[in-house]
Amino acid sequence: MDPTDPAAILAGLIRCPSVTPQEGGALALLEALLARQDFEVARPVFSETGTEPVENLFARLGDDGPHLVFAGHTDVVPPGDLAAWSHGPFAASIAGGEMIGRGAVDMKGGIAAFAAATARYVRKHAAPRGQLSFLITGDEEGPAVNGTVKLLDWARERGERFDACLVGEPTNPEALGDMIKIGRRGSLSCEVRVAGLQGHVAYPHLADNPVRSAVQIAEALLATPLDGGTEVFQPSNLEITAIETGNPSVNVIGARCSVFFNVRFNDLWTVETLKAELAERIAAGAASERLRPARPAAAYDLVWRDRPSEAFSTKGEAGTKGAALTDALVAAIAEKTGRAPQLSTSGGTSDARFIKDHCPVIEFGLVGKTMHMSNERVALSDLEGLTEIYEAFIARWFAANA
Amino acid sequence: MDPTDPAAILAGLIRCPSVTPQEGGALALLEALLARQDFEVARPVFSETGTEPVENLFARLGDDGPHLVFAGHTDVVPPGDLAAWSHGPFAASIAGGEMIGRGAVDMKGGIAAFAAATARYVRKHAAPRGQLSFLITGDEEGPAVNGTVKLLDWARERGERFDACLVGEPTNPEALGDMIKIGRRGSLSCEVRVAGLQGHVAYPHLADNPVRSAVQIAEALLATPLDGGTEVFQPSNLEITAIETGNPSVNVIGARCSVFFNVRFNDLWTVETLKAELAERIAAGAASERLRPARPAAAYDLVWRDRPSEAFSTKGEAGTKGAALTDALVAAIAEKTGRAPQLSTSGGTSDARFIKDHCPVIEFGLVGKTMHMSNERVALSDLEGLTEIYEAFIARWFAANA
Repeated sequence: MDPTDPAAILAGLIRCPSVTPQEGGALALLEALLARQDFEVARPVFSETGTEPVENLFARLGDDGPHLVFAGHTDVVPPGDLAAWSHGPFAASIAGGEMIGRGAVDMKGGIAAFAAATARYVRKHAAPRGQLSFLITGDEEGPAVNGTVKLLDWARERGERFDACLVGEPTNPEALGDMIKIGRRGSLSCEVRVAGLQGHVAYPHLADNPVRSAVQIAEALLATPLDGGTEVFQPSNLEITAIETGNPSVNVIGARCSVFFNVRFNDLWTVETLKAELAERIAAGAASERLRPARPAAAYDLVWRDRPSEAFSTKGEAGTKGAALTDALVAAIAEKTGRAPQLSTSGGTSDARFIKDHCPVIEFGLVGKTMHMSNERVALSDLEGLTEIYEAFIARWFAANA
Repeated sequence: MDPTDPAAILAGLIRCPSVTPQEGGALALLEALLARQDFEVARPVFSETGTEPVENLFARLGDDGPHLVFAGHTDVVPPGDLAAWSHGPFAASIAGGEMIGRGAVDMKGGIAAFAAATARYVRKHAAPRGQLSFLITGDEEGPAVNGTVKLLDWARERGERFDACLVGEPTNPEALGDMIKIGRRGSLSCEVRVAGLQGHVAYPHLADNPVRSAVQIAEALLATPLDGGTEVFQPSNLEITAIETGNPSVNVIGARCSVFFNVRFNDLWTVETLKAELAERIAAGAASERLRPARPAAAYDLVWRDRPSEAFSTKGEAGTKGAALTDALVAAIAEKTGRAPQLSTSGGTSDARFIKDHCPVIEFGLVGKTMHMSNERVALSDLEGLTEIYEAFIARWFAANA
């Protein structure tokens, strides 16, 4: 296998049926490929009660100096209905200039391109002045418990320190060079449990209708935008996912009413500052007399949901590691495609949410259109294009950080 | 039994254990009492599939001319825990100037007082110039299916026409003469089923959150009072009894959200005009862009609940039958107690809601404090006082309508 040929590497990886959490031979193939290029390779297996053990891979070239890590996963989602595939999902067939197979773009293609880019760079320049690593898990499409989180902790315990990370997930909506992901919005959920006083609907003065309070609280939460967004983030947004009274009787004023909401927020907020703002709005809604004239403030409990996530963005002020990382990638994309990628924080979650606690992280890979679909496929020209961008990125990053 | 002694009649009635829907001998006692005073008495029994047959009584004195009807019921609610009674609930014991027993005030006491008042009137003046009737059911405390509704239809079919009706339910909160009931608010219930478009909470622009529309509709329903009330009615009032989304997931924008509400309304509205006003408010709430910027109006269905009831009030313009009825009673109360009763439309329902479709109807009886409670009891002085008021009312009504 030519280590500089991304199509050859990708075909090898697709033929390993590594449906999450199965290793399927994919990490073994990558281990052999990188070991031949003098990478020091480890294959830690992580497990936890109640979960399946998962194989992972960490490979490093170089012993000290600036450390660039490429992160990704070899596990893939199941192929689904085989009849819907024009070619076998693990055959790596080529048709019309495209290679077809599960993981072609998400994200064995990204791994193949970065591995080929590394081989080309080393062939031209010798090993980079610093450290270049692969941090690859077999548990990204699954529960994500025995994968990147544990692999990062494992690496830190071994003394590994990273200066920058590129995740090779497919980020481009339409064409190579469209979009870099430089962060994600945070997420915070809450239930507001409003207490009322039950009573007959004909005698509202003897009761306290919690729905009136709930509507006031909903109003207070929704009436004013949280912010106007930032250069790289859309405005924070709050959605009330449910109001539930649990009162089946139209003759009765209920005893309680809950307002459930979720906020997707940008980095103008932290979980803490956002909670404070929301608590203030809820208190104002509960105290309002607009729909509850001459009533004392409604009583309520705030039940914040577990596992809120913070917003993060890698593109920092000029001179920071995050800015240097983004600049190197933007310049490489411009050099190879002539395009200026959008710096985006949209979309669902990825392992970048874990990596961001270790070093600046951005994401850039193939065109994501066919990910998770039948006939997942990658244009061979894109695979070559991404390899060239990655190689230019490696060169620029080490040049800037040497 | 002295037909002019309300205490003797009441004791006889209490000793008939006519727990709804049992006749218990109470109607038979009344039949015998009235027949001795030359009333023509009928005892129709009504039944309907799925319900127990119920005995009723209609008794008329006089063959033509102005027709005053006294309406009531001999059935009583169950005594409940016998240990909580100081005297047997069907013993009609007297202690401390009060007669104790189930039905003492609700409303065997009212029937006894009107029967005694009739006997006293006839003894003094001979039979009134007109018609005086008793319309008594054994199904007021129960389902009210085989009682007053059917008895009114039965009477109409026999050619009976009524000019005015007094219902002898206990209406006084504290003391005899406090309050006449001259009507009731209407009741209308509805479910507004708001349609949305389900989606992921992180991509609200691809979904349409029905909770936002529901909150706008709730606002539109509640924000402006329906009216300021009238001389005899409190302001109409709308309560949202529930908002239900049925969405357990905090990551998902739901597909639907229902707003349930009930209105208790005065006679500034009919069911029809109120529905029109509410439909307009709901449409405005659904179309608002306040919480749903740049969105088309939300789709929704209005599901009006069965059996709305109209508001009614008997006190009409001067010169009407309703005004004459009210005036005669107010004057009788003033004559016997020196008090000016409050003309009220408050409280729960009574059979007056059915009678109002046949003739003007008002309600006045004993002090209601102990109704439906253990040790239900009536002061003998109140029983005598009510008899005198009723006698004065009969005299005034026939004098005014002769």
